[in-house]
Amino acid sequence: MGFWKSLFSGSDTPAASSPSQTQEYFAAVDVGNDISSGSRIFFSTDRDIDLYELEELCDAVGWSRRPLRKVKKAIQHSFLVISMWEVRGNNQRRLIGFARATSDHAFNATLWDVVVHPAFQGKGLGKALMKHTIKKLRSEDISNITLFADPHVVDFYHNLGFISDPEGIKGMFWYPN
Amino acid sequence: MGFWKSLFSGSDTPAASSPSQTQEYFAAVDVGNDISSGSRIFFSTDRDIDLYELEELCDAVGWSRRPLRKVKKAIQHSFLVISMWEVRGNNQRRLIGFARATSDHAFNATLWDVVVHPAFQGKGLGKALMKHTIKKLRSEDISNITLFADPHVVDFYHNLGFISDPEGIKGMFWYPN
Repeated sequence: MGFWKSLFSGSDTPAASSPSQTQEYFAAVDVGNDISSGSRIFFSTDRDIDLYELEELCDAVGWSRRPLRKVKKAIQHSFLVISMWEVRGNNQRRLIGFARATSDHAFNATLWDVVVHPAFQGKGLGKALMKHTIKKLRSEDISNITLFADPHVVDFYHNLGFISDPEGIKGMFWYPN
Repeated sequence: MGFWKSLFSGSDTPAASSPSQTQEYFAAVDVGNDISSGSRIFFSTDRDIDLYELEELCDAVGWSRRPLRKVKKAIQHSFLVISMWEVRGNNQRRLIGFARATSDHAFNATLWDVVVHPAFQGKGLGKALMKHTIKKLRSEDISNITLFADPHVVDFYHNLGFISDPEGIKGMFWYPN
């Protein structure tokens, strides 16, 4: 499987000019964080994520369940998908973080579904996930990175350089009645 | 040309399941607003927009100019593109409004570049443009429509049913240093 091959060969496939159109696009990056003895943290942009494993991660932070059919479609049509993995030894990997971005491939990207497993929070991994995501978007020449932050994570994003309501700009939502 | 053919035959091509992947997708809708004697307002989802005409529209509201190469790319990779036209007689059309949305094709859409020419503001056309855009997104089963509103248009979006900072959710931006 591509994931393991790339992960352990240490290869880092260059970013395609349009990652959302390239299902094969893949990059494994060893961030070098030794979380506990014998484990390492990797990032991947592979979209071929086990949807049940992703659901389990989202369950762990208390998110409402969503139809997997729609989650699959959203992943397919996101501009960038980043997953964060804990790898132990040679054959154990666990999905511990996730983020994705929609984009017009030119000016703007918007982050959605940013999540770090509670057991891995407070170790700087959310920050590492976001820095990796920003770096990927910047490498695609996206200069306006946006998101909608729940109140309890606003400070987290401030610390990463995000600004809330710059020049009075308001984030607004429309939902069906 | 497809535009005129569809415009005057009154046909309304059904929405493709994934408009952003279908360059041929087109719908002309007569909203029936008679702005002045002999003129009518139409909406189109055709992406084949004259970029100089769009730049002229954006100039009219004082927006900073952007590289047309990037504007073209952004239009190509938007999920939905809506243009609003004034048509006089049989052969005169003028671009008077525009909006586009990025999306994951499943849950979320984000509106960008919403503009109505100053000469056509105050006539309910911005509202018509937004209602048409929301209707199109809803027909694609998108339930979370978001945007970032400049302070002077927050009330405009409130009146359309948009909510700012629901449950304390903050719109946040990251720009390169």
